[in-house]
Parts: sequence; C-alpha cells; structure tokens
Amino acid sequence: MDTISSYISEHKDRFLQELIDLLKVPSISADSAYKEDTFKTAEIVKERLMEAGCDTVEICETKGYPIVYGEKIIDKNLPTILVYGHYDVQPPDPLDLWHSPPFDPVIKSTDLHPDGAIFARGACDDKGQMYMHVKALEFMTSKDKLPCNVKFMIEGEEEVGSANLATYVAANREKLENDVILISDTGMIANDVPSITTGLRGLSYVEVEVTGPNRDLHSGLYGGAVANPINVLTKMIALLHDENNHITIPGFYDKVENLSEVERAEMAKAPFSLEHYKKALDIDAVYGEEGYTTNERNSIRPTLDVNGIWGGYTGEGAKTVIASKAYAKISMRLVPHQDWKDITQLFKTHFEHIAPAGVKVKVTPHHGGQGYVTPIDSIGYRAASKAYEKTFGKTPIPQRSGGSIPIVSLFEEELNSKTILMGFGLDSDAIHSPNEHFGIWNYLKGIETIPYFYKYFTELHQ
Amino acid sequence: MDTISSYISEHKDRFLQELIDLLKVPSISADSAYKEDTFKTAEIVKERLMEAGCDTVEICETKGYPIVYGEKIIDKNLPTILVYGHYDVQPPDPLDLWHSPPFDPVIKSTDLHPDGAIFARGACDDKGQMYMHVKALEFMTSKDKLPCNVKFMIEGEEEVGSANLATYVAANREKLENDVILISDTGMIANDVPSITTGLRGLSYVEVEVTGPNRDLHSGLYGGAVANPINVLTKMIALLHDENNHITIPGFYDKVENLSEVERAEMAKAPFSLEHYKKALDIDAVYGEEGYTTNERNSIRPTLDVNGIWGGYTGEGAKTVIASKAYAKISMRLVPHQDWKDITQLFKTHFEHIAPAGVKVKVTPHHGGQGYVTPIDSIGYRAASKAYEKTFGKTPIPQRSGGSIPIVSLFEEELNSKTILMGFGLDSDAIHSPNEHFGIWNYLKGIETIPYFYKYFTELHQ
Repeated sequence: MDTISSYISEHKDRFLQELIDLLKVPSISADSAYKEDTFKTAEIVKERLMEAGCDTVEICETKGYPIVYGEKIIDKNLPTILVYGHYDVQPPDPLDLWHSPPFDPVIKSTDLHPDGAIFARGACDDKGQMYMHVKALEFMTSKDKLPCNVKFMIEGEEEVGSANLATYVAANREKLENDVILISDTGMIANDVPSITTGLRGLSYVEVEVTGPNRDLHSGLYGGAVANPINVLTKMIALLHDENNHITIPGFYDKVENLSEVERAEMAKAPFSLEHYKKALDIDAVYGEEGYTTNERNSIRPTLDVNGIWGGYTGEGAKTVIASKAYAKISMRLVPHQDWKDITQLFKTHFEHIAPAGVKVKVTPHHGGQGYVTPIDSIGYRAASKAYEKTFGKTPIPQRSGGSIPIVSLFEEELNSKTILMGFGLDSDAIHSPNEHFGIWNYLKGIETIPYFYKYFTELHQ
Repeated sequence: MDTISSYISEHKDRFLQELIDLLKVPSISADSAYKEDTFKTAEIVKERLMEAGCDTVEICETKGYPIVYGEKIIDKNLPTILVYGHYDVQPPDPLDLWHSPPFDPVIKSTDLHPDGAIFARGACDDKGQMYMHVKALEFMTSKDKLPCNVKFMIEGEEEVGSANLATYVAANREKLENDVILISDTGMIANDVPSITTGLRGLSYVEVEVTGPNRDLHSGLYGGAVANPINVLTKMIALLHDENNHITIPGFYDKVENLSEVERAEMAKAPFSLEHYKKALDIDAVYGEEGYTTNERNSIRPTLDVNGIWGGYTGEGAKTVIASKAYAKISMRLVPHQDWKDITQLFKTHFEHIAPAGVKVKVTPHHGGQGYVTPIDSIGYRAASKAYEKTFGKTPIPQRSGGSIPIVSLFEEELNSKTILMGFGLDSDAIHSPNEHFGIWNYLKGIETIPYFYKYFTELHQ
C-alpha cells in the first residue's frame, strides 16, 4: 500500500481538475430550474466510475433524480463494501455573500488550509468527499490493490430528503447486499485531530403557513383590528421555546436519552475552545438550552431552528401592508430514539393548537430521518480507526455529530448493515453556506486513507 | 352649479380615459427601478394641470422626486384653496395575486361597484382621487365657475414618507399661503353613507436587522448552540405585545388620549357589521387590543404591525441553514399627541434592550409623521359637509381613520392652516393591496362634489 502516496503525488493535478469539472455543474436538487444540470451530473458520475474501474455502472431512474449504481465484484467469498454518497448540492443562496461564483471553483489558501482549498458549492458536501472514493478506487484497480468487492450508490436527492432512495433500497436489497457501508459526508475535528463520527441526529423538516385576511390589507385601515399573520407567526414560533430554551412541544423530550455524567465527562475531553468558537463566528456569546455545553447542545440534544421566514413586503423602502400570509421553514434535529414521524406529528398538533382565532394554520412536513449511533467495537469502526492511524499518525476520536444523514438508519433497517462515517471536512468549511470549500490536503488525505480502510476491513473480516 | 352634472355626463368617457392613461405609468417611488416612470408621471400631471386651466404650473425639483405646483389666482381678495395629492403609488407586490396586470387598467363590476370600477395600482390611492380635483378645476375654469383662488401641490414621495416635502414647504411658505387645504386621499364608509375623515393616525416606520454568526451555518452542526437570528427576531417581535395585545414598549402609551365614554358611544353609532367585516376578509374572528372594539382599535388606538419579514432560505424545497441575518419592517400607527420621533426612539431603545447576548441588533428609522384631528366646527368642515349634502343627499358622518397622511400635521405647523379630508374611496377598494380599484361612480361623484366645496367655502368665508 505504500504506493498510494506516490500515486497521489503523480496524479494530484488531474485529481483536482476532475473535481473542479464536477463542481462546475450546478446540481441543485431543491430548485427545479437546475433539473437538466442535475441529470447531467449523474451521467458524469457514471462515466467517472467506469473509468475508475467498475465492472458495470448504471443510471437507475427514480420518480426524482436518478441513483448512480456501480460495482466491481472480484470474489463472492470476499467481503463487500457499499460506498454511499450524493452528487446533488444545496442551493447557493444568498449569492451576494460569495466571494467567487459558487459554480466557478477557485483555489485559495486559508488559515486552516495553508496548502489551498477549493471554493465552490458542493466542494466538501458532498462532491469532493464522494469523489475521494472514486479516485481511491482508481488507485486500487489500476495497481491491483483492491482487496474486496465494492459497490457504489451515489444519489441525487440527499439535500432534499432522499425521498426516492428508500423505495430503491427496498426494491434492490439483494443487489445492495454488503458487509459494511462507507460514507464520507461528515467532518473531523481538525487536520491534526482526526475523528470519526459515531452519532448523527435525526431530522424533521416542516413548512408552516399562517393565513389571516384573504388579501393584503392597508396597515392604517386594518392595523390593530385583525390578526396580522406575521405578528402571529412570530408569536407562535417564540412559543416553541421556553425561557430556558427548552422546546415546549408536549412529548418532544419523552424518548430523549439522558447521557450519564460519565459519558458527558468523556465527551468534554474533546479539544474545544469556546473563545475560538465565538471568535470564528464573531459572536459575543453562545446561546442554547440551559444546563448543557455547546458541544452537548449541538450533538446529544435535540433542537428546533427556523431555517427561513418570509411574508409581507421585503423590497426596497417601505410598504404599509398587512400581509395575507406568512411562512416559515422549520427544522428539528433529533437524537437517537426520537422517531421523526412521531415528532413531526407532535409538532403539527401543537402548532395548530397554539394558533389564535383569526388565522388559519397549515403545517406541511417536508422530509425527515432517524438519528443513529455507530458502535465503536465493530470491525468497521476498528478498520477505520486503523486507517486513520496509518495516514494521520494518530488514533481518531469518536465524535457525535449534530448533523443528520437520515438514510443511515434506513440502511441499517433495510440492508441490515452498519455504516462507517469517515469524514475529512472541517466544520469551518462552510457547507450549506456561502464560500463552501474543501482543503486540498483533506481531499488528498481522504484518497490516501480510504484504501487502508479496504485493506484493514478485509483483514479483520476474515 | 347645476351644470356640473351635465358637464360630467358629457365628458365622462374622456375623464375615464385620461385617468387610465395616468394609471398606465408605474410611478413606484419605493423602487428605484421605476425612477424614469416616476419622473415622467410628474410631467404628465403638469400638462394636465395646464390643460385644466392653471395659469402657471412648474416642476419643482427636490432631492428626490419633484413636486408639481400649479395655481390659478383670480383675485387676491378671495380665499385660496390649496389642493394636495400625490402621483406616486405603492409597489404592486405580490404580483401573482393580481387578477389583471397592476399597470394595465381594466374596468370590471363588483358587488359594491355595480357601475364598474377601474382596477390598477394607484386607481384610488391616489391618482384617481387626485385627478378628480384636476377635472373639477377643468369644469370650473371652462364654465367660469371658479369662485376663489386655487393652488395645487402634487408630490411624488407620499408612499415613501414625503422626505423632501417638508423642505419644500418650509422654503415656500408665502407661495403656498392658503385659507384651507383640501386632500382626497382617504375613504368614506359606503356609497350611501358618506363620511368625512376628521382624524388620522401618525406613523413611525422602522426596519430592524438581527445578526447572529458572521455567516450562514449548517443547522445540524450549529443548531441549538448559537443564537439563530430568525428565532431571536421572532421572540423579540413577540415580546412587543403582551397577552392582551397591549404594546409593551415602555412609555409607548404615555401621551395617548383616552376618549370619554360619551365620545366612544358617539363613535359606536357609525354603521358597522362585525359579521360583514369578518366575512369580507374571510376570518373567523377579529383580533386586537383587549377592551376596545374593532372600530376603536383601528382609529383611536395606536398599533404595531410587522409589514414584512425575511431571513434564511425562502426558495423551493428545504435548506438546513441557520441564517446570519434576519430582518423585519415594522410600522406603528400613532394617535394624536404621540410624537413619532419620540416613539421611534422609544422603540429603538427598547428593541435594542431586549436583544439577547449572541446577536447584534440594528434599528433603522424609515420615516414617520404625526397624527391629526380636524375640528368639525371650522368653515372648511362645514363647507365640505354642505357639499356632500348637496351631491349625496345626506349629511356626512365625521369619522376618525386609522390611516396616516403625515404631512397634514406638517401643513398645520408650517402653513398655519387646517386640512379637510374629502375622501371618496371605500375601505374595500384594496389600496396598498393586489387588485386595487376605484369605483367609477365614486370618481365621478368626487368630481361633482368638489366644485360645491369651492362654492360653499367661498360663501362661508366672506
């Protein structure tokens, strides 16, 4: 395996260029204006997988965007690794905060990435991290170093809730059969503090609509006499947290697991500087649920955040109007054991219940997924840990993440196998934000580490 | 004066067509994209005033949109009426709720306007009502029926707070000298219940910006651990009213005049059907300050309404983002004695005070104006009342309006004269809303009534 680092040295310019080409296509699954580009991206992924050495690659149509499936089976008696990733990206809004166009990748150095980082939507989430696996495969097949079977399942709807993946997985259980699932769609603590994500939060994403009068009204003639949907919406949202920032939805915390003091003390050992955290975000104080630390608030505790709100006149200048409708997009991050469908229902019931007379309320669930915890004594975790040790020279720290990859629970249920989350991005890489980027060092380090996972997993499995 | 009704019969098609031509120009003062059209509208008004018989008309430049000033002085010893109106209009958003394009006027019948109404932005507010005065002047000059001097001052920034009018008025006190100011920019109760507006509310309009982290964040990685500006903004707005819908800003009610039970009983005599009101707006209940009726809430009580709110992802689908910033446009309608500058300062101080640690808050005042009450024993009010009696066959009801025309207080201060508000629109004419319209009957009735005001005012003045 010593040849992986020399292979990377030799081909790194090409590895970069191929990723840049992939990032130029705006595969925004949330916005139907980019439909053609999203379909085109699936085709590019298919071609790259073929070139990297898959025996067969197919575009599997769904009701939405297709799933790209590829495989290389070398021996049915050897273990099989299923790689999951996604080729779709988040919308780039707000565009005016990008320092360079989101789909015109540029390379710039940053404090945390002195060797340069690629700036583009999807650079880290997840085109860059997904493409590491394609390049690792290229190395293993071209140098005869593939120790086991491999299957790729790359979807195009992760950023909009993977609505059609469940159907596909349920219909293809045999085809997708595997011994472990490998995903790079999370982060690590720092370039010199490698970590492996062992927990993910679940998600419930809803949209709410509050309707007052049947048309926009003049705020002078009607102000104070009818329910203003925006004022009402703000009041209803405010009611969702109490003064300690606990969520007030009845039953919301019923299934939340309370970690022991020992477990919390263990978590608190992860390197973390509150001062650095505040400085990086330019905030004078953190904010959150009373009684928990920052790292607990964003990993082991469920949350409720408004992701978008709109209503009335939002243009230049002033308009004295009472809007007929106001809207918000609200997401709840859930912890293991909280069922996202139950929570969505609890939210809906409560939100409708707190609506005052004079307005009508509509709650539309968008999507969701269950939380997940990976056991750290599994073969998969041990193989990943050894791979990091080999390439980083340090044992990685197991870490619970606040993010959600809802399909991880689905995989366990449908395919009966565990997922290993080997992420190489940093929290500061601004995924889902303007100026998303991915360190070139991280990209190449990922390509270097993945073949070791294959090697150790195969060895431990036997 | 009997010839006014026959003059209208003879020329009504032309009167309509001229208004339609005026409505076709999108003079949206709030949106700089319509700068050219707004300037062009001033030119059209100038031409129409010349044609209607003014001796001189000039375009008076300001730092913003110009003021069109015209006059016809027949005898320095006769009284002078100053007509104020505005040629700018509100933005037409939301466009998708219009049944016909806002600047492509169409005539349709409605339940309240069986003879047809002109649907267009500005039809009632204020192009239609302003143009009634131009056509009334045309009748009086062409038929030698002008009994006194007349001055016109038509501005182009009423919908954005008349920022440059005060400077103009202060610099032209002598030129604008008058015995009464006449404005048609309000409404009446119903076509068979004429009313004259005797009170206007003041206004304070502000924009607020809440900034949390210095960039948009992934809600999974940061959710629950940093102040989400949208959640914080909703909480802060919710705090501005208590459970009885009283406004909580300290000092806000200090100067609010409490009407006596007798005055309130007098007000309650105005015809009003709560059932009809709710049905017209399609709401199951009204909403507002505890202890007051609907008609009190929207006229003698101050209010606070959010006119627009935005932040985060508002596009199609879902984006799990914590926005860096959230915004709202908030207006307060004030009652006489509440000084809008004081109230704006009270708002700013309070809003900054209730901001939690972890966010920064910016409050930007947009514009404002004082409330106003017209005495009903003045010559002006009596002349207006007689004019309505003549053309409607009924004594008009004095009525306090919830709307604001901030410049009315300014006129009293700078020009030392009273304003008479002769409005011919209906509350249901949807001013500031999609599908604004103005009844053709109302338009023509206005043209018919105005010359009688001139006649009676001149007679009573002598």
